Amino acid sequence: MSAFAGKAAENLKKIRASKPVVHNITNFVVMNITANVLLACGASPVMAHADTEVEEMVDLANALVLNLGTLTDTWVNTMIKAGRRASNLGKPIVLDPVGAGATALRTNAARAILFQTWVNVVRGNASEILSLSGQDGATKGVDATRTVADAADEAGRLARELGTTLALTGATDLVTDGHRTLVIEGGHALMPLVTGTGCSATALVGAFLSVDQDPLTAAATALAYFGAAGEIAGTRTTGPGTFAIHLLDALHSLNPEELEARCRITSG
Amino acid sequence: MSAFAGKAAENLKKIRASKPVVHNITNFVVMNITANVLLACGASPVMAHADTEVEEMVDLANALVLNLGTLTDTWVNTMIKAGRRASNLGKPIVLDPVGAGATALRTNAARAILFQTWVNVVRGNASEILSLSGQDGATKGVDATRTVADAADEAGRLARELGTTLALTGATDLVTDGHRTLVIEGGHALMPLVTGTGCSATALVGAFLSVDQDPLTAAATALAYFGAAGEIAGTRTTGPGTFAIHLLDALHSLNPEELEARCRITSG
Amino acid sequence: MSAFAGKAAENLKKIRASKPVVHNITNFVVMNITANVLLACGASPVMAHADTEVEEMVDLANALVLNLGTLTDTWVNTMIKAGRRASNLGKPIVLDPVGAGATALRTNAARAILFQTWVNVVRGNASEILSLSGQDGATKGVDATRTVADAADEAGRLARELGTTLALTGATDLVTDGHRTLVIEGGHALMPLVTGTGCSATALVGAFLSVDQDPLTAAATALAYFGAAGEIAGTRTTGPGTFAIHLLDALHSLNPEELEARCRITSG
Repeated sequence: MSAFAGKAAENLKKIRASKPVVHNITNFVVMNITANVLLACGASPVMAHADTEVEEMVDLANALVLNLGTLTDTWVNTMIKAGRRASNLGKPIVLDPVGAGATALRTNAARAILFQTWVNVVRGNASEILSLSGQDGATKGVDATRTVADAADEAGRLARELGTTLALTGATDLVTDGHRTLVIEGGHALMPLVTGTGCSATALVGAFLSVDQDPLTAAATALAYFGAAGEIAGTRTTGPGTFAIHLLDALHSLNPEELEARCRITSG
Repeated sequence: MSAFAGKAAENLKKIRASKPVVHNITNFVVMNITANVLLACGASPVMAHADTEVEEMVDLANALVLNLGTLTDTWVNTMIKAGRRASNLGKPIVLDPVGAGATALRTNAARAILFQTWVNVVRGNASEILSLSGQDGATKGVDATRTVADAADEAGRLARELGTTLALTGATDLVTDGHRTLVIEGGHALMPLVTGTGCSATALVGAFLSVDQDPLTAAATALAYFGAAGEIAGTRTTGPGTFAIHLLDALHSLNPEELEARCRITSG
Repeated sequence: MSAFAGKAAENLKKIRASKPVVHNITNFVVMNITANVLLACGASPVMAHADTEVEEMVDLANALVLNLGTLTDTWVNTMIKAGRRASNLGKPIVLDPVGAGATALRTNAARAILFQTWVNVVRGNASEILSLSGQDGATKGVDATRTVADAADEAGRLARELGTTLALTGATDLVTDGHRTLVIEGGHALMPLVTGTGCSATALVGAFLSVDQDPLTAAATALAYFGAAGEIAGTRTTGPGTFAIHLLDALHSLNPEELEARCRITSG
């Protein structure tokens, strides 16, 4: 049992004890599943995007999740406003650059948020993350077209360049802060067939950041928890509809001890 | 069997016979489950929030549901516009002050709607409802931090002050118009772990208001129906994902006779 | 086995091989289920509605889905912008005129899109579709109040008038381009009790249009696929909650050969 497995169990225990408020400014497609995933984990989700209230909501929150999924210019401005508040208060921020690389709006929005706020973790697929380096402009919708393994070296360089922690998810997940790299095994082949699983993983990173000050272990343990629940759900169903609801059940029923036993995080 | 149980059965029968159009101006997180809950009940949900069409939609509707969940200033104005039309036409309105007390935008929006339109029922958790009195400013996100029992006296005073009926939901539900108080038992511990159950209860109150002119019994019977379905769903599952879908099945399969047998409304 | 059954199998096979990007500008209620239905089919859904990115997203897409469900004026303009780009590029467009006939905004929006873009298929219930002729102004919410059979002759005339293909869905589906008419059997009585099934059928028509240049067969085979999955889901459940998730499983597990065997398309 690695030290990371113990950390995963400890983080989950803390979330269930403290019920952190996770403030999401996220996309319309995934708001419902994101809220349900956070509730199943033990956190308290809040969704709020009004320019006139996001700062107040950040004040009440323990973590901020910014997700570019169904973006408009107005939303970008509001995300930056919320993110600056969180940065000033030292509250953790996780960014999900959905579709970065696909359109200028999304790539530019991700960069603007990274430059104007203090993002602790960026969670995306390899294509989205690597598009942030300005060296890769091709994303096919929101699907991964690059494998995580293929992207490891480039991700390390980019993490140092951006001064943040990057969490690349795929068949295998990889988290790097440019100095340390962790590899997370788990999950299930049906996960990419359920819309919002990636976005929900991002929201879980937000919950874990609220109880773990090290972005590297917070992200890795959140992904290990999500992956373990995905494995359990995968034993109960063979289709994406039933899989999605058993994933929520598994996130809810998974206790810290079981998570510790199932956790597969290794140094990369 | 109380008279309220008979009323619950009668109301459900009327909804299934007349398929009332319930016009929802609600939040992005819960639109899908709200529509599905109304369909499972037998009503016809419509979601429409364009400033240029809400009045026409109110004209077609049998009840109006206003929900502050993912509010912006524009939406508040549109809700008031729709609410004024409904008030002028004598159509019932139910308000869900999601997160009232948490931010100024939400508390002010709830009050503006209450003062400028004729709201028949306000449905929320104890914290949200009591924040409307201006004597309680602390809400933790959208979770209840006050118990319903604890709030009964204060709710009665507030109902008289606001001149409306208040429906406070929690482990036990309470409905009061400031003169009469009803207590509703039912539901299941998993309900708060499914996002949108509170908002869906509000929408059901809208459907029941369209067939029952007494806001007190309309709200109480709607909550009894929802609680009975929750109990049935709770016998079929132990996780929040599967619970949510069995809740829809139970709302659909529950017939008036079974509802009468299961209904637990008592004078408080 | 009709030629249409073979075409249905061929289209599904092509979608699974090419994973077409289907760009949806659709309503908030159904975004989640629409994305999940497209994923279960084998397509790559993208939801994007920002005025500043829709043209870029259309450039990346293989088909465009325009859905009027929770419309505002801004969204209408963006839909027209996206639709004009798709028209110029010769990319297929499917329009879902949700609630057309119910309010002026929706009816006018549907007509504006039809006149300013090159819509290949309009998918709706009989009331919505016939409201586009300007001869029928009464829609009860988004529910069908006219039967498809009753509407067949009128639909044929309207298809010629509008110069497009019309897909009217109900207990039986009908597709006509004004010269040829196809009737599609299938589906299940629970489908109208799940919000977003109609909208999801529209999105599937988009996916099928991306691999089949004949709008008539693209629409008919998409509806046959959806109907076959509905039949399978209907054998596994009796309630709308569980039905919805088994529908996703069935869309995912249905292979081209099974679709060919189950497909019931006949010339009308």
